Amino acid sequence: MPDNKPDITSLFEPKSVAIVGASHEPSKIGYKILENVIRGGYSGKVYPVNPKGGEILGYRVYKSILEIEDAIDLACISIPAPFVFEAVQQCASRGVKYLAIITSGFSEVGNISEERRIVEFARAHGMRVLGPNIFGIYSANASLNATFGPAQIRKGNVGIITQSGALGIAMMGKTQSENIGLSAIISIGNKSDIDETDLLEYLGSEQNTRVILMYIEGVKNGEKLVDALKKITKTKTVIVIKSGRSRRGAIAAASHTGSLAGEDNVFSDIMRQCGVIRCETISEALNLSKTVPELALPSGENTVIITNGGGVGVLAADASEKYGVNLYSDYPKLKSLFQDCVPQFGSTKNPVDLTGQATIQNYRDALKKALEADEISSVICVACETALFDVEGYADLIKNSFDQYRHKKPIVFSLFGGKKADECIAILRKDGIPVFHDVYDAVFCLGGLYRQLGNLKKPQSAEREVMVDKARIQEIIEIARRDGRRFLLSAEAHAILEAAGIPAPESRIARNLEEAVAFAEEIGYPVVLKVVSKQIIHKSDVGGVALDILNKEEVIDAYQSIINSCRQHMPDAHIEGVEICEMVEPGIEVIVGARIDPSFGPVVMFGLGGIYVEVMKDVAFRAAPVTPGEAVEMISEVKGYPLLLGVRGEKKKDINSIVDCILKMGMIINECREISDIEINPLVVYDDGEGARAVDARIILSNKEVKK
Amino acid sequence: MPDNKPDITSLFEPKSVAIVGASHEPSKIGYKILENVIRGGYSGKVYPVNPKGGEILGYRVYKSILEIEDAIDLACISIPAPFVFEAVQQCASRGVKYLAIITSGFSEVGNISEERRIVEFARAHGMRVLGPNIFGIYSANASLNATFGPAQIRKGNVGIITQSGALGIAMMGKTQSENIGLSAIISIGNKSDIDETDLLEYLGSEQNTRVILMYIEGVKNGEKLVDALKKITKTKTVIVIKSGRSRRGAIAAASHTGSLAGEDNVFSDIMRQCGVIRCETISEALNLSKTVPELALPSGENTVIITNGGGVGVLAADASEKYGVNLYSDYPKLKSLFQDCVPQFGSTKNPVDLTGQATIQNYRDALKKALEADEISSVICVACETALFDVEGYADLIKNSFDQYRHKKPIVFSLFGGKKADECIAILRKDGIPVFHDVYDAVFCLGGLYRQLGNLKKPQSAEREVMVDKARIQEIIEIARRDGRRFLLSAEAHAILEAAGIPAPESRIARNLEEAVAFAEEIGYPVVLKVVSKQIIHKSDVGGVALDILNKEEVIDAYQSIINSCRQHMPDAHIEGVEICEMVEPGIEVIVGARIDPSFGPVVMFGLGGIYVEVMKDVAFRAAPVTPGEAVEMISEVKGYPLLLGVRGEKKKDINSIVDCILKMGMIINECREISDIEINPLVVYDDGEGARAVDARIILSNKEVKK
Repeated sequence: MPDNKPDITSLFEPKSVAIVGASHEPSKIGYKILENVIRGGYSGKVYPVNPKGGEILGYRVYKSILEIEDAIDLACISIPAPFVFEAVQQCASRGVKYLAIITSGFSEVGNISEERRIVEFARAHGMRVLGPNIFGIYSANASLNATFGPAQIRKGNVGIITQSGALGIAMMGKTQSENIGLSAIISIGNKSDIDETDLLEYLGSEQNTRVILMYIEGVKNGEKLVDALKKITKTKTVIVIKSGRSRRGAIAAASHTGSLAGEDNVFSDIMRQCGVIRCETISEALNLSKTVPELALPSGENTVIITNGGGVGVLAADASEKYGVNLYSDYPKLKSLFQDCVPQFGSTKNPVDLTGQATIQNYRDALKKALEADEISSVICVACETALFDVEGYADLIKNSFDQYRHKKPIVFSLFGGKKADECIAILRKDGIPVFHDVYDAVFCLGGLYRQLGNLKKPQSAEREVMVDKARIQEIIEIARRDGRRFLLSAEAHAILEAAGIPAPESRIARNLEEAVAFAEEIGYPVVLKVVSKQIIHKSDVGGVALDILNKEEVIDAYQSIINSCRQHMPDAHIEGVEICEMVEPGIEVIVGARIDPSFGPVVMFGLGGIYVEVMKDVAFRAAPVTPGEAVEMISEVKGYPLLLGVRGEKKKDINSIVDCILKMGMIINECREISDIEINPLVVYDDGEGARAVDARIILSNKEVKK
Repeated sequence: MPDNKPDITSLFEPKSVAIVGASHEPSKIGYKILENVIRGGYSGKVYPVNPKGGEILGYRVYKSILEIEDAIDLACISIPAPFVFEAVQQCASRGVKYLAIITSGFSEVGNISEERRIVEFARAHGMRVLGPNIFGIYSANASLNATFGPAQIRKGNVGIITQSGALGIAMMGKTQSENIGLSAIISIGNKSDIDETDLLEYLGSEQNTRVILMYIEGVKNGEKLVDALKKITKTKTVIVIKSGRSRRGAIAAASHTGSLAGEDNVFSDIMRQCGVIRCETISEALNLSKTVPELALPSGENTVIITNGGGVGVLAADASEKYGVNLYSDYPKLKSLFQDCVPQFGSTKNPVDLTGQATIQNYRDALKKALEADEISSVICVACETALFDVEGYADLIKNSFDQYRHKKPIVFSLFGGKKADECIAILRKDGIPVFHDVYDAVFCLGGLYRQLGNLKKPQSAEREVMVDKARIQEIIEIARRDGRRFLLSAEAHAILEAAGIPAPESRIARNLEEAVAFAEEIGYPVVLKVVSKQIIHKSDVGGVALDILNKEEVIDAYQSIINSCRQHMPDAHIEGVEICEMVEPGIEVIVGARIDPSFGPVVMFGLGGIYVEVMKDVAFRAAPVTPGEAVEMISEVKGYPLLLGVRGEKKKDINSIVDCILKMGMIINECREISDIEINPLVVYDDGEGARAVDARIILSNKEVKK
């Protein structure tokens, strides 16, 4: 199968478009798409196709794709599902580059084979497929509205990728009524070939796009998505709404698109790792999409709130903490800046409270100070519509201040009140001015800007070279495979940790009593003895473990007692020997795990040991491999982190050892794809500088051998 | 001072009102209030007062309060602060019942003494004071708009109490533009006399009020508030916005009203205890206030989502989980109900997905089924505005269905789309129909209704009689008071636990070696020995503790070693003896505390021991005393609760012992007001039926003696 992928730019900027299934009937989708393409001002060539022929909207209708003589970059197919394959064959023979298959009735309803047949044929003939089960594509660069959504779309710098068609069309409507300009909006439908990442990469490189908004329900190829997101968030704001957060939502999402909605916390953690802003509601996401491109990037973290009501001022301060906006707190400086603008009984502290008596002149003075002071990096200006408040005057001030300072300093506004306030907000918002009814909405948008700033400023954490003896790991895996086992034995797991250079307690397997004594003496007391037998899974239950063995005599006793007890309890078990292990000193127990996630591929997990993970679910995930910076972030993110810093007068723990372990686990899961799960539980961590020990590890191989 | 409180009804339903400071100048507050009173349709008598005399808006202006010959129920005072006291004196001589002091410039700016003087004078003369520093009062029952807010107010069943004046006026405006009907809105300002609870009690008994919305920044007399809330939430919905959630917000709130904003989690927990719905934003609170009175109470917990877009359906399911709305999941039943209404490729599962092809007829059929099926108790109907969707038809359907079923079954709607959708929503909302742009807003309101239903259905948890020997506790306290100590000694704390019947390890103080041996033999081994000395605080540091003493010989060794070591390390300490304690078997450690909270008075606290409290802040609070039901709730609320249910094959722990301890601690803190803090840490809890032991208790007395 030749993999002659055309450049995806042709999908967004095609020179010619065929509408296969163009209809004469204005109520039909096939008519609507053609109408939108024509009315939308598309400058390329348009070829309506319909076996009836004739003319629609003044365009000649071709009876078949085969009749079209010119080159076709994009064919939009909107005909019943049973006829799609034939149309695709005809497209192939005409050298079409992209197929946008609007038609539904494929994998989303279980008709997987037909979808696969179409995609395989298309790919074999150099075509790529968007859809099926989509509403189409709008691309501002080509003035192409090949959708059956609203006709008028405002050009701008927000690019939207949506997995839900109905929601996508409704969002098109909403962007229209909210005056949000789009660079593109694309429906991904069943993602039979082109997926969200392909589209994301185009929008990431497309000049006019400043914000990318994605609605997704499930991720199929998370590794590819993570790579793309990490790159793109360095220059653009990426907002994701992922539904199916709840268990019930996940069931609904799965039945809707057939893709597996991964565990929600894994998704959240990895999006944070990628610098993506995750929104819960569509309103939040659209507010942010509209606002971020309008705001200058702040030069620092000092935000000032200006208010005429103590109440909304406090609410704005609450919202600031919630959304990560830092309030400026140099009170002497604030006083010297604002004392002349604040009326009697007001406050120059932050919130700067101009009181209910505030005039527009008070606001003008305070805003000017705030917007011009170098110490202040962003401004939240809020107001209540009181009896004496000049709402129109405030609206004018908002407009003028924003116009004057928009490229200098970010500022968001809120105005809470009645009809007059509502009308002013509506007018200002039409002009793209970030003004909101509720202070929380205003502060949320400023918080989003600071999140983006955090991405831009984040130091590039170099990937640290970690040494892992992959050949040795592969050897161990092969032994298990030959035995037909997917669960590695304790000694094998131990050997893999050794190959990865993860410190584990010293351990050797004694085949007889003499060896047991000799090994114990070599390792040094105290030691632990454990029976080694493939048949004995729960060693303690059959007397197969002896802890805290202090000398030679105790080794002898313990060895004999283990052998006797196991023989008695499980006479059929083949006892290969007794493992002699270094006894591990107590420390803080943590868990480091790694696995192949069904959505994201290799991921690592960190949590505090025992009940913290089991009961409190206090864990952090990242897509693997991770950088040292990311490992530090995940460690500091769990709620129990203060335990590692030392509480109750204890010393700080050896966090570097955990980082090292996370990096190595990330490398193993990423590079040794035969391993599907690996978990160290517990990793016992000692005081800073004194390292850590992996006491127990559980390793599971994938259920099929992986060809590298 | 005679305490001849007039019935607070006269504040809300006065027969006559004097406007002291009525102004001839339309831009002045004193004019605006008079104008609002007259234009608002108040039917009682109105007496404008201004030394200039003359006439305003056709009303004779009295030159002085003293000139008014009739009885005055309410005097609204809006004159500069320095003249208020004199006006209040005149009001007293005219037998005024209520003063609403609009004027600011009192305690909120540090002018505490003048405010106190006014209130003391007023109370001494049988008057009660609302304010100062308020915008006034609106009361629908009297058609009285004695505020300087908007003139037109829609009558209805939402009562608002607000601590922020500017926010209150803006809310009046918003209720107007959102068509929310008010039964009353009152500003509480500095709460110099009448506080939120007094007003709450009126609204709680006032027939037209169905929802009470409170904006508060700080609580002064929390005990009174808790009592009122617990009663009122049994019949009405109470919504609270408390700002100052964040540390920064709390600073701003404190500087604004001078009241101490309590710790936010204490506030949240106690509001939940009282059945209050806490909202974060004003928008949420107003949405809920508007919606709840429009909805019938659901008969059960089975909610169905109807959608035309998989995407919004999933979002609605996510929102349902977030807001505690339970989705109906009897799939066979759902199938039999909806199979005839769902088009091809749709789903009868919940969300019931009518697909993007859904017609209004599909919606009509599905809605009818859902609204008439007895199995279904509430409905969330959502839609996306797609190209083929008949928005006006949907709007009609919403109106008709809501009108027909509004008294039968709760239903909320959402419609997401462009201009046409926005317009339809605006029209429907005017009619009080609960339709929202964002599905999250719709589901939030239904969630609020279920919260209210939970309050109504909550079984009355009878207060359990707990036996606490208060006389004995008082004796112990008096000994400490005589010593001038606020921190009780370990033995005193132990004695208080004993007086409360909280099981503690057996313990006796030995004055010499013979006693030590005798007591150890009586208590039974193993035992613990601890030095007893007021001078020795950190006993372990000076060798003053010996653990796990197994027999007589060890008692002798330990006793001597403790005495020697303490004498050596602290030669000046007076050693009173050595405490011989029962050694406590290990179990699960929890903390039970109680204290006098600055806002709420007596509160109890529960958390899992050690780092769970310190690091994870995993605790629950309640206002004391608590019922057994409330104690169970607080225990089950902490994240570590599964540990008490038994994890990893462990047995369930003795939760009844914890309940008992919480009840007793609640009783002690509530009844023994000389104690300001009492904490048992740890309470060691054993398997179910095996009790618990209070190993250590710390008790602090209040910094002044309390007269009972």
